[in-house]
Amino acid sequence: MPPVDGIRLATAAAGIRYPGRTDVLLVLLDTGTTAAGVLTRSKCPSAPVDWCRARLKAGVARALVVNSGNANAFTGRSGRSATELTAEIAAKAAGCKPNDVLLASTGVIGEPLDAGKFAAIMDRLAADAAGGGWPEAARAIMTTDTFPKGAAAVVRLGSSIATICGIAKGAGMIAPDMGTMLAFVFTDAPIAPAVLRALVREAVKDTFNAVTIDGDTSTSDTLLAFATGAAAARGMAKIARLSDPRVAALRKGLNAVLADLAEQVARDGEGARKLIEILVEGAASKKSARRIALSIANSPLVKTAVAGEDANWGRVVMAVGKAGEPANRDRLSIWFNGIRVAHKGARDPTYDEAVVSATMKKSEISVKVALGLGKGRDRVLTCDLTKEYVAINGDYRS
Amino acid sequence: MPPVDGIRLATAAAGIRYPGRTDVLLVLLDTGTTAAGVLTRSKCPSAPVDWCRARLKAGVARALVVNSGNANAFTGRSGRSATELTAEIAAKAAGCKPNDVLLASTGVIGEPLDAGKFAAIMDRLAADAAGGGWPEAARAIMTTDTFPKGAAAVVRLGSSIATICGIAKGAGMIAPDMGTMLAFVFTDAPIAPAVLRALVREAVKDTFNAVTIDGDTSTSDTLLAFATGAAAARGMAKIARLSDPRVAALRKGLNAVLADLAEQVARDGEGARKLIEILVEGAASKKSARRIALSIANSPLVKTAVAGEDANWGRVVMAVGKAGEPANRDRLSIWFNGIRVAHKGARDPTYDEAVVSATMKKSEISVKVALGLGKGRDRVLTCDLTKEYVAINGDYRS
Repeated sequence: MPPVDGIRLATAAAGIRYPGRTDVLLVLLDTGTTAAGVLTRSKCPSAPVDWCRARLKAGVARALVVNSGNANAFTGRSGRSATELTAEIAAKAAGCKPNDVLLASTGVIGEPLDAGKFAAIMDRLAADAAGGGWPEAARAIMTTDTFPKGAAAVVRLGSSIATICGIAKGAGMIAPDMGTMLAFVFTDAPIAPAVLRALVREAVKDTFNAVTIDGDTSTSDTLLAFATGAAAARGMAKIARLSDPRVAALRKGLNAVLADLAEQVARDGEGARKLIEILVEGAASKKSARRIALSIANSPLVKTAVAGEDANWGRVVMAVGKAGEPANRDRLSIWFNGIRVAHKGARDPTYDEAVVSATMKKSEISVKVALGLGKGRDRVLTCDLTKEYVAINGDYRS
Repeated sequence: MPPVDGIRLATAAAGIRYPGRTDVLLVLLDTGTTAAGVLTRSKCPSAPVDWCRARLKAGVARALVVNSGNANAFTGRSGRSATELTAEIAAKAAGCKPNDVLLASTGVIGEPLDAGKFAAIMDRLAADAAGGGWPEAARAIMTTDTFPKGAAAVVRLGSSIATICGIAKGAGMIAPDMGTMLAFVFTDAPIAPAVLRALVREAVKDTFNAVTIDGDTSTSDTLLAFATGAAAARGMAKIARLSDPRVAALRKGLNAVLADLAEQVARDGEGARKLIEILVEGAASKKSARRIALSIANSPLVKTAVAGEDANWGRVVMAVGKAGEPANRDRLSIWFNGIRVAHKGARDPTYDEAVVSATMKKSEISVKVALGLGKGRDRVLTCDLTKEYVAINGDYRS
């Protein structure tokens, strides 16, 4: 992943939860950086989510502070104070106003966050901040993730080139209802806040909002996008309107980066061994297809069957049936990795258990459902439900 | 469990899925028996569910045939033929019309059911049928259940006594949207079909519809109630209207039997080691309280935390937040087994990890959430999510 002009990064171990673990990321953003984001729809959002929601109205930012180890969620008044203190400390180090600092936290819920720990390291972080360093940044925001997640795209906007880099963390409590746990995307293109906001909201729909690990929507879901505008120095004119002809290429690049990150999140679901793609077609509408796809993707019985490498398409029927969306059992067909196993309401006449069992051993499983009702189609990514998911979450806090 | 006048039972091993396993239950019902039921709202119901939905309109029945090992679901035309053939075979043995036979099947989805196997055993079943025998009946309908489920009540209706006996099976694919997998309840009281129907629909709301194992609604959910009216021979007058003063006692008895069976289903969820009661109060309405309770009860993260004996109330906050119902983080309080762990949007000031950890070791965990918004309250039962659930469902079909 290449550096993005106008962005400098640094990471450190602040001892938020475990001593010696890299748990803080500081991102310094050049003057003029625009920002947009999507935040959890949870009715019990974390303090940093509340902070970002208020700050994002201005559409600009100069710094981003992310910590892992503590979500600063359900921490009451002390949580609000912690966000204010963190922003003050970062603003002093970055030479900006506290309101120009965006914040995100991930980790345990309900424990007070000692923001004083940031004071000891922030000046050094600001001094050390440099271009690049994406893998370290992605690693600093991990919790139960097993690998750091990053993606990049280079897009031609008119006669100039812009870079888009993103990082994300996922693992558990992932059923974003508009961003995931944490994802950050950066570009050096000069983009007006309203344009950036519109592009991000649109891109999230079929990327992060189409991923589910366990159907559990986090209190802390945060996706932030930053456009430094540094490419203006190379002659790139500002993208001020969605009708700008360069928006098509920008949209394509942004969507590709978010789709790549979202897929990495699904692949690295807690305890996951298989990536599962759910394709629904022939539904009454796209919205209906999404609901049916999520009903399948969130079904513990479908997910355990895939973990057990069992082509148990009866459970897919169950999940279609329980979704509450228009469906006609006698028109339903189902495929696993392209092999049709059920057709028009019954087992496929050509069903061959040996062939189907063999395909279930693959590390990527595609489940396609054709409803035969309309033109609605959608795609959702998830992962299997294994004993390791239970083990990870049976003793995560202790 | 006492015999119910007008009911005779018999069980047999028909070799539906495994040789030598008791897998068929025949219930003979005296002439004049009224019947009512609630059936799955799945859009992909099983063939026996379709059969019962059509037959229940008449409100009478003479026989019930239940098999385990094969759900006869998503079996297309052959599934419909299998229900017709089963009803014909049973009608001949019972001396009634096929339309007076109700059917239920539980087991694997998508495999054709060979109803011919019933022909070899049905005459002997009818000849052997006798009063009592509830434990054998409950065992015959089990799949992955670890114990047979039954409950009984004796109610005084005016000057006479009536008996109510029920059996059920549960285990997995349990998130009934109106009956559970299979439950059957029998009484000797003489009850008009319309009264029986109204009582059953009402009783289901806070019993079977308030239980969830995995959020997965079955294609086969069936709850049937039968009133033989045999108590009329002892002078009990027919209960023809809901305004009958005896309905209060009948309702109480029926609700108690269904609540007992529903709790047994929750306790015996696949792989479960703990029964979890979710109490929600102070919600905007009862409906809102139910949705929040189900959001908590279906959260894999809450269920794995209980399995791990971890008082992770942060995940309860998450589940409240994701329910999409009115909630105010800063008014929220949470209790585990009566110990308040969170109060008004933050950890309880008196929180003592040792005390809370000790209570999580119990086999029954009560989670109470007070929203502080209104008067809506509700209660839902579920169980923990263990590695055994994953093991059971990772190789159930194979």
